[in-house]
Amino acid sequence: MKKIAITLGDPNGISPEITVKALNFLDLPKEKVILIANSDILKFYEEEYDLYLEKQYDIIEIPFDRKNIKLGEETEEAGEFAFRALVKACELVQNKQVDAIVTAPVSKNALKMAGHNYSGQTEILEQYLANTNQHAEMLFVCEKFSVYLLTRHIAISDVPQYITKENVSEKIKYLDKYLTKQIKIEEPKYAVCSLNPHGGENGIFGREEINEIIPAIENLRSSGINVDGPFPSDTVFMNAYNGAYDYNCYIAMYHDQGLIPIKLMEKSTCVNTTIGLDILRTSPAHGTAFDIAGQNIAIADSMISAIQLALES
Amino acid sequence: MKKIAITLGDPNGISPEITVKALNFLDLPKEKVILIANSDILKFYEEEYDLYLEKQYDIIEIPFDRKNIKLGEETEEAGEFAFRALVKACELVQNKQVDAIVTAPVSKNALKMAGHNYSGQTEILEQYLANTNQHAEMLFVCEKFSVYLLTRHIAISDVPQYITKENVSEKIKYLDKYLTKQIKIEEPKYAVCSLNPHGGENGIFGREEINEIIPAIENLRSSGINVDGPFPSDTVFMNAYNGAYDYNCYIAMYHDQGLIPIKLMEKSTCVNTTIGLDILRTSPAHGTAFDIAGQNIAIADSMISAIQLALES
Repeated sequence: MKKIAITLGDPNGISPEITVKALNFLDLPKEKVILIANSDILKFYEEEYDLYLEKQYDIIEIPFDRKNIKLGEETEEAGEFAFRALVKACELVQNKQVDAIVTAPVSKNALKMAGHNYSGQTEILEQYLANTNQHAEMLFVCEKFSVYLLTRHIAISDVPQYITKENVSEKIKYLDKYLTKQIKIEEPKYAVCSLNPHGGENGIFGREEINEIIPAIENLRSSGINVDGPFPSDTVFMNAYNGAYDYNCYIAMYHDQGLIPIKLMEKSTCVNTTIGLDILRTSPAHGTAFDIAGQNIAIADSMISAIQLALES
Repeated sequence: MKKIAITLGDPNGISPEITVKALNFLDLPKEKVILIANSDILKFYEEEYDLYLEKQYDIIEIPFDRKNIKLGEETEEAGEFAFRALVKACELVQNKQVDAIVTAPVSKNALKMAGHNYSGQTEILEQYLANTNQHAEMLFVCEKFSVYLLTRHIAISDVPQYITKENVSEKIKYLDKYLTKQIKIEEPKYAVCSLNPHGGENGIFGREEINEIIPAIENLRSSGINVDGPFPSDTVFMNAYNGAYDYNCYIAMYHDQGLIPIKLMEKSTCVNTTIGLDILRTSPAHGTAFDIAGQNIAIADSMISAIQLALES
C-alpha cells in the first residue's frame, strides 16, 4: 500500500489551510499519510477558524513557536520551518518510509531569509534525493494534459543557449522515461513548442527551430518516441484547449511559455510535479497566496489533486 | 462621417468569406465602406457557397483571375493580389478618401512568393504611411483589455537587447499618445509585464527588471502616465481575466508573451490594430486559416469587431 508524506509548507500563507481542507475532503485511510507539520500551527487554525483535521493522522513534529505566526508575512522562522519539513520528507524517502511526497507551497524569500538559497522546492529535493545520473524535472500535470518546462528559473537571455539539439533530445528522453513510470501515461504523445514567434518563420525570426529543435525531434522519433513539432506556442495551447490536439504532454522551451497557459486555463486542477527522482513529488500549482492568508477562503482543489496524483503514481 | 476601406485579404483563405459575412451582419450604410476587392472572387463565393454581399458597396477592383483561386494554397497570384489591395488602401489614406483601414488576413508566405518580403501587413503599412517621426505599433484590442507588443517579429535571443530603459519608456509614451487619440480610452492604466520568470526574482533570474524596466516605469510615472509593474507575466494575465486587475492595457515584452493569453482567452473578440500612423488600421486577430478555406464554416466575429472598432475610432 502506498504511503505519502505531506509537508505543511509556509505557516504564514494558505498552506496549512489548504492542507487541512484537502485532507478532510479526501478522508484518506490513516495509514496512507504522514504529516510533517507542527501541532501548535494546527491548533492555531482550529482556534481561530474552527478548521481542524477530522482524522488523527500521524504527525512528525517540526519545531515552530506559535507566537511566530505572522499571517501574510515572509519571515525567517517560517522559512526555517518549511525547509526543515522538506528535509524531513527527504529523510523519510531515503529510509523508504514513504512512496511519494506532497509539498504545500513555501516562500522562496522566506527560505532565503533563513539562509537557504534555492530557486524552489524542486531544487532542494534534487540536492537531497538525486542519485548519480538523476536530476529533477518540473512537470505540470493538468486535467487535460501536461506541460513540461525544458528550462525553468533562468533569465530569458540565458534560454537560447540551452535550446540545443543534444539538450532538447536528452531532456525529452529523460522525461519520457519517468513520465511512463511515474505518471503512468501509456505511449505518451508529445508536442514541442517552438522557441521563437511563429516557429521562427522559416528561420527569419531565429534559427533554433531549424538548427536544433527539428533535428532533436527527428532524433527522438528515431528512438521510438512519439513527438511532433515545433509548434508556435501561441497557437499550440489554443488548439490543445479547443480539443483540436490530443497530445499528452506539451514541451515548453521556457518558464512563462508554459506557465501563462497553465495559470490561465488550468490553475485549480493543475499539479506541479517533480519527476526524475526515485519517487514522485507533487505540489499545488500555486504559491503561498500571502494576500489571502488567514481569511479561510483558500480553495484546496490543486492540493487535493496533488495528493490524489501522489497516491495514484 | 467616417469612411473605411476594407481589403479582401488572401483569396485562398477564409478572408473573402469573413469579409462578406461581417459586412452582411453589420449592414452598414453604403457610404461608410469602400471595398478593395475583385468581383470575380466575390462571384466565386456566391456561386459556390451562396454567400454574397447583401448590399452594393463601392468596390475598387484589383486584378485577379478567377481560375487562380486555389483554396487552402499559398500562391504567388494570391500574394500579389493581397499586396496590391493593401497598397491601394494606403493610396486612399494618402488622398484622404478614407479615415481608417480594415484588412482581412493575408499570407506572409504568399506575399513572399510574389516578391514582397515583409514580416506582416503592419510593416507594409508602416513603409507606405509613416511620416517622419512616426512608426507602426501593434496593439491587440480585446473585449476586456488591450495587449501591446513591445517587440514583435524577432527571435527570442534578440528580445533582451530591446528591453532598455529608453526603449521601454519611449515606446509606452508613443503608445499612450496614440491610444488616447486612436482607440479613445480616457486616462488609460497600463500594466507592464516582466521579461524574466517571476519578474527576475530580485535579479536572480535576470536583471532587466531592476536595471531597465523599473527605471522606465519611474520615468513614465514622472511624465504623468498611469503605469504599474513589472508583473510576472504568468500571473498578470490570470489576474486580468479573473477581474482582479482593471488595467486597460498590458505591455508584453515579446510576441508569445502577449499572444498566448490573447489566443487562449480572447481570440474571437480580439482585434489586431496598427496605431501610431495618421489613421487606425484594424484586422482580425487570426490568420488566413487555409485549413478551413472554402468550407463556409469560418466565424466572422473578429472581423466584425475589427470593422466596428475602425468605425468608432
